[in-house]
Amino acid sequence: MAESSHSATPPAFPVVNEAVLRASMARAVAAVRAENPLAPSITNTVTQNFVANAQLAVGGSAAMVYLPDEGEQVAVMGGAVYLNLGTLLPIYKQTIPRTARACAEAGTPWVLDPVGLGIGQLRTELLQAVRATPPAIVRGNASEIIGLAKLWGLGAAASEEGAPGEGPRGVDTTDEVDAARVAAVALARFTGGAVAVSGPVDLVTDGAMVVRTEGGSPLMCAVTGSGCSLGGVAAVCACVADPLTAALTATALYNLAGERAAAHCEGPGSFQVAFLDELHRAAPEDVAAAPLLFETA
Amino acid sequence: MAESSHSATPPAFPVVNEAVLRASMARAVAAVRAENPLAPSITNTVTQNFVANAQLAVGGSAAMVYLPDEGEQVAVMGGAVYLNLGTLLPIYKQTIPRTARACAEAGTPWVLDPVGLGIGQLRTELLQAVRATPPAIVRGNASEIIGLAKLWGLGAAASEEGAPGEGPRGVDTTDEVDAARVAAVALARFTGGAVAVSGPVDLVTDGAMVVRTEGGSPLMCAVTGSGCSLGGVAAVCACVADPLTAALTATALYNLAGERAAAHCEGPGSFQVAFLDELHRAAPEDVAAAPLLFETA
Amino acid sequence: MAESSHSATPPAFPVVNEAVLRASMARAVAAVRAENPLAPSITNTVTQNFVANAQLAVGGSAAMVYLPDEGEQVAVMGGAVYLNLGTLLPIYKQTIPRTARACAEAGTPWVLDPVGLGIGQLRTELLQAVRATPPAIVRGNASEIIGLAKLWGLGAAASEEGAPGEGPRGVDTTDEVDAARVAAVALARFTGGAVAVSGPVDLVTDGAMVVRTEGGSPLMCAVTGSGCSLGGVAAVCACVADPLTAALTATALYNLAGERAAAHCEGPGSFQVAFLDELHRAAPEDVAAAPLLFETA
Repeated sequence: MAESSHSATPPAFPVVNEAVLRASMARAVAAVRAENPLAPSITNTVTQNFVANAQLAVGGSAAMVYLPDEGEQVAVMGGAVYLNLGTLLPIYKQTIPRTARACAEAGTPWVLDPVGLGIGQLRTELLQAVRATPPAIVRGNASEIIGLAKLWGLGAAASEEGAPGEGPRGVDTTDEVDAARVAAVALARFTGGAVAVSGPVDLVTDGAMVVRTEGGSPLMCAVTGSGCSLGGVAAVCACVADPLTAALTATALYNLAGERAAAHCEGPGSFQVAFLDELHRAAPEDVAAAPLLFETA
Repeated sequence: MAESSHSATPPAFPVVNEAVLRASMARAVAAVRAENPLAPSITNTVTQNFVANAQLAVGGSAAMVYLPDEGEQVAVMGGAVYLNLGTLLPIYKQTIPRTARACAEAGTPWVLDPVGLGIGQLRTELLQAVRATPPAIVRGNASEIIGLAKLWGLGAAASEEGAPGEGPRGVDTTDEVDAARVAAVALARFTGGAVAVSGPVDLVTDGAMVVRTEGGSPLMCAVTGSGCSLGGVAAVCACVADPLTAALTATALYNLAGERAAAHCEGPGSFQVAFLDELHRAAPEDVAAAPLLFETA
Repeated sequence: MAESSHSATPPAFPVVNEAVLRASMARAVAAVRAENPLAPSITNTVTQNFVANAQLAVGGSAAMVYLPDEGEQVAVMGGAVYLNLGTLLPIYKQTIPRTARACAEAGTPWVLDPVGLGIGQLRTELLQAVRATPPAIVRGNASEIIGLAKLWGLGAAASEEGAPGEGPRGVDTTDEVDAARVAAVALARFTGGAVAVSGPVDLVTDGAMVVRTEGGSPLMCAVTGSGCSLGGVAAVCACVADPLTAALTATALYNLAGERAAAHCEGPGSFQVAFLDELHRAAPEDVAAAPLLFETA
């Protein structure tokens, strides 16, 4: 594999230490509120309302489009772009590759959410197409991360893991996060960005270090779009921070808001409402105080 | 009409008695929670978020798609499929018939929600096309059920009813449920499955018996997607139960959750939130204790 | 410019006085609840659930479609139609102009929400196309109203304003409402209808008088679709009232409900819930008691 400009080997030592990373997370939360950055999306119709509301709740700005020239234009307008492959329409055949390419040309970081990987022919084609202009952040559950590493031929790494037991199954996690560790690190090294694996324990890596964090609530799995909206919020954070910080900040925000919302709700309906409220008022220092476990990749 | 394998005459006596049916309803609620079955949908963009959240709230799993090959694939992956014709896109010309056919081939029961029947040419074409591979459950309001029976030429039965006074009118009920009784029974006998007519009093039939039940709240009409999400939940129940049980269980769940939510809300916004909470915690025995009135079809 | 049947000059004196207008607003709120009018939409997938729920909360009825012949059909069925250009699909190239034309032929007033004006080629083409069969109400933020007046060549008026500083930027207001006054008046004179400019202070005009009103809450900007759903509610009001009354009633309803919801919420999630509740119970006389500042256009 000759991946041109993408780092195929890890740096010899972690780029940042814990204190620097926590300070950077706090700054990201504050900067989003101060700057109201625009993170446009091409995303899943099922959850796009929740994605937009989550992006607004943390202080960002949202705009969703479908058409190829609109994707190219928002790639230039936005501070970062969120591409979620959950519900493909025929026009996406043009829109997704052209938008990813426009991001590369404009230097706009983009976040990939490979929802539904393995379902249908077009999704596979699109994921293969965007490999040439890769995302700054990949966010998915364990089986999606493993599947993407395989699809992109990040081979030795991904093949060690074995296939997810049951193949694609809607949007639920069927693999454990740990099983996706090797694939996540391989993807991060390939893209030169960060990868966030969502699960009971979340794993975020930039290919050099692996950070585990946790929190949230089982109720997050009873609300559609918890993962998608996390991807959208990661894009908002990527407008003001490097990929690792952005992915980790969004994940920590979600865990904090999820935990707090679960403490005063009656079920999935009131959980989602409280969750947006808690996203809106989470203090930068509380986000930066997330439990983080570090190890070298 | 030579409907091949579909029963055109009712069984000589009801297949189940009341006690058996109630036990079966309780088992369905519990089984959904235990098994987290996947019921994929091709559905209405207006309400698909609510459909997915309702499916998750009762314990099921959701996945929405638009493309023909994805429809075919989820027909094999899912325990049951939900097809709602509320907001048609051009690609549905291929997706809906191919998905219904794939369900028939895979033996996957599917639920038809003929939302908007009478509006536009494509909707009529699609409803005619899927007649060849009919649904296990049809869910609609009275005018949709009458309209579908007519469209499918289930003639004597449907024509007795007369046409709905005003023709199609968005998604609101313009006919009374009782007026759709003959059409519902005719549809159930044609499909060999169950039909659920939603209204102030709900009517569910398998062509052999007619069951009336009630509950819910007038606020359900002030929230978009009450009907659609009931169809989605019926599909989740159809993953673990026969069509009559599934249609009746979903209807009873909705009535129970609607009644309870209405008791502690301030309007349609807080009603919808409380409704999802109540769907999530309804006990199997409470669902099975729904008021049911039986008669022979 | 020879605008055929559309009034290009203002009436010599205001058509209505304040007392008449307030009485007309109260009547509109009550009439919507009494008559449950249907206001179909072709609208933004991000916010269409909120649009429909807001339309239902005030007492109206909703139906969303995408296909050209469905647009033409609902133009005849509905009391008014809402066309929002937020998330364009390829089929809109046919659907939007044909629906606007069908409204003109049927005498059905329609509401235009030029969301995203300036993004992509198709949006510009569609806005140019519907100029020939103009809306009864235009609703937008200041930069959209200024942009539309320019696009439609309502020249002297619009060019005085200067361009919005940063061009299109998602769906956020980047101009102040006052800066759009001249453009709003020019648009209203061109269409012969009303224009509503949303902002911290709202401006509504029929080309003869300008009415300013305020209220609401900053939290409305933290919920996606506040503007879109206002457009949808304006369409519901346009089923039972003249364009000026409809635009002003919808705006006053929003400000009242927003203010009340903000008084007892915890953040954007609970705000949206409370907002729908407050829309549902706002009394006609309270809506008609909105703070209104009048001046001659």
